[in-house]
Order: sequence, then C-alpha cells, then structure tokens
Amino acid sequence: MPELSPQSVAFLLFPNVTQLDLTGPAQVLSRLGNTELNLVWKDKEPVPTDAGFPLLPTATFDEIEHVNILCVPGGFGTMDAMQDPEVLDWLRKVATKADWVTSVCTGSLVLGAAGLLKGYRSACHWASIDQLEFFGAIPVRERIVEDRNRFSGGGVTSGIDFALALAARIRNEDFARFIQLSIEYDPNPPFDAGSPDKVSPKILERYYKMVEAAMPDREAKVKAIAEALGF
Amino acid sequence: MPELSPQSVAFLLFPNVTQLDLTGPAQVLSRLGNTELNLVWKDKEPVPTDAGFPLLPTATFDEIEHVNILCVPGGFGTMDAMQDPEVLDWLRKVATKADWVTSVCTGSLVLGAAGLLKGYRSACHWASIDQLEFFGAIPVRERIVEDRNRFSGGGVTSGIDFALALAARIRNEDFARFIQLSIEYDPNPPFDAGSPDKVSPKILERYYKMVEAAMPDREAKVKAIAEALGF
Repeated sequence: MPELSPQSVAFLLFPNVTQLDLTGPAQVLSRLGNTELNLVWKDKEPVPTDAGFPLLPTATFDEIEHVNILCVPGGFGTMDAMQDPEVLDWLRKVATKADWVTSVCTGSLVLGAAGLLKGYRSACHWASIDQLEFFGAIPVRERIVEDRNRFSGGGVTSGIDFALALAARIRNEDFARFIQLSIEYDPNPPFDAGSPDKVSPKILERYYKMVEAAMPDREAKVKAIAEALGF
Repeated sequence: MPELSPQSVAFLLFPNVTQLDLTGPAQVLSRLGNTELNLVWKDKEPVPTDAGFPLLPTATFDEIEHVNILCVPGGFGTMDAMQDPEVLDWLRKVATKADWVTSVCTGSLVLGAAGLLKGYRSACHWASIDQLEFFGAIPVRERIVEDRNRFSGGGVTSGIDFALALAARIRNEDFARFIQLSIEYDPNPPFDAGSPDKVSPKILERYYKMVEAAMPDREAKVKAIAEALGF
C-alpha cells in the first residue's frame, strides 16, 4: 500500500452538542490512516453533551490553526455557539486554510453564522434546514451535500454517510468501502421512520413539541442572530 | 404523555473500545426519557478509544450495582477486557439484576467470557462472530438479536439499529420511531460495502490483514482465554 498522505481532523466541541453528530463521523475519519483527530474547545475541561456523558477536548482553539478537515457538529448547543465570537473567529481562521470545511446536522448553522456558507449549498437536520437561508446558504435536503470544499451531512446519523463520502474523496472509493466494512455499515433499521415524511402526524407533532420545549422560538432567534451578525 | 418509567443505562468502558459501538446506542438510549446513562470503568481517568480521543467514565464499578440496561461495546480492547477478573466480576454482578443484558459488536465476547451467554443466541461483529462458540453462545449473523433478556447488535453501526429495537421493547414502537426521526436515521450509505459478501476479495483481504496486524492470532487467543476460564 502506498504511503497515505497525513490528514488532520478537528471537530469543534461545544456544550450540549449532539454527541453522535461528532462521534459517528469521527469513527469513520479516524480510519483514514495516517490521521490525527482532535476535539477542540476553549479549554480542556469536560464538555457536556446531550447524551448524559461529557466529551473531553483534546486541544484548545489556540493549539489548532491548520487542519485538513474542519468539522462542526450540531445540537441544541448550536444556539450559543452561533453567538460566541471566540467560536466564530476560530472557525473563520481555521477554515481559510482547511482542505475541507464540513458540518453535520445543525453544525451547518454555526458555519453559516461564521460567514462560511454564503452562496454554498449545504445540508442540515431536516427540522432546521430552512434556517440556513438566514446566513446566505442554499439548503439542500440530502444526507450528503458537496459544494466546492464545503461538505456537509444532514441530521445526526447522516454524519456516517457524509464521512464515508468524504473518505472516498480524500482517499478513494475502495478505501471508503474498507472503512464501511470495518464498521459493518449495512444499515437495517427496525423501523422506517428516519425522515418527517415517513412518520405519523402524531410523532411529528411530538417531535416539534420536544424541540420547542428545548429551544423556544428557535427560528425567530436564529433569524435575530443572523441579523445581529450583519447577514 | 403518561409518566415514563425511569431507566438506568450502564455502558462498560475500557481502553481501546471502538467508540461508536458505545456512542451510537448511547445516543439512542439517552432519548428514552427519564433516563440516566453512565460510562463505567475502574476509575474516572480518561479512557483511550480507537478513534484518537478518549472517553471519560462517569462512574466506577463500585458505584454501579443495579441498572435496567447493561451494555458492553466491542473493539480491539475486548481481548484485555475478557481476561480482566475485575471486569468480568462487575458484569456478572450487574447482569444478575439487570432487565436487559446487552452488547454491541465484539462486546458479546466479553459477555461470553463472563459466562453470561451460555446457551443464548447472540450477535457479534461479522469478522469475530464464530468466536462466540468458545463461550457456549449461539452465533447469529444478524444486526439485531434478541433472546430472552439478552439483546445484542452486530458490528459497530449495528448498535444504532439494536438500540432502536431495544427502545421499542422498553417503551413502544412509536417511541422508537420518534427517536429515529430525531436522529434522522434514514440511512443512505454512499457505497454498498457494509458486509463481507458485498466487497471485493481485495478489500476483504485488506481487512483481515489490518485485524491480524492489530490482534495477531486473535482466534487462537480467544480460544485459549475461554479454556483458561473453564469453558
């Protein structure tokens, strides 16, 4: 096997991240070979996630300036991340030199807030994708969206599909297949309920109620954030 | 919505775990509602995973005696876990009172080593599933396997499918669909290479070489471990 080019990957970590947005693609990208992967935040204290356990940053913003792959996961914590100048400044700085500027789920809204998706097509979680327009991005309702060096995944588990597609672009298709085999990604969900057109109105209503309870008036708030940022 | 029964979930954490074996089902199970989730190890120091970043235990063996759901993830670190009396003792102690004794990927080999799968049907990662027989378990090549209160997932990403099936058993099918919708689990992998019958001989050979390099003579070693444990 020829020597593999070194790849550095940085995931933005932030409080109340949806941990699978990060850990799914991290599993795939960590198998690119000759790869260094970091979870990056302001300090190295444990960062709470939405799943009842924390993730530990492996590097701080000051320590990471250049990476091949920048990836921003999503989650309810994006509302704060979008308004945090330290986060947005770091993303802008790293994105200018990165080979790939990527996101999973509502992480694309944070990239958008940093001004990194103006005129770019992007994915997002199905329930938040319209909000991309507040930041001048073009919402695309797919699990994997590529536009120049922007590469994004839709909601949560889309991050696995997205990362395999990115792996194929960075290495080659057979390399991505090798990773897919290693993680036995031959999905066979017990139910067919992974998108809003596949569930009953009752389940959909329950979902919207849950989100509204967790993030009241989120669409109006994201719009106000975009306006405050000058979009 | 009627009040949800409290659910406690404990994942065994150990060095060199395949982190997605744990973080995939953890994302699903954390959304059961009224749920406490712990990652359990001997101490609370960061535990290295296979993906370049550590996971932080939230509880020690001493702190967790009774849970509703016990789950053992897999990974290359299972070889040490299978031989660790402290791990096996804790699993036996917690399993006797747990509602559900579960595993993902090669985590079933650790449950097997603890004597918890004798005569039970179980899943495992496709490349290691034959080893279940060393521990008196019955290998089943499916992504989700249920046998009495044993519930297991196949390799890595099967843990998401498995956890949705378990969520349906604990709550109900519509609750599982609600979780599936929330994590947009409508998988659409860019390649069809998630099982050994779907890849070229070249990719399969490469996979076996990688595993052999990481865990030389693993089948013989697991057999010897089982014999030493009295199976």
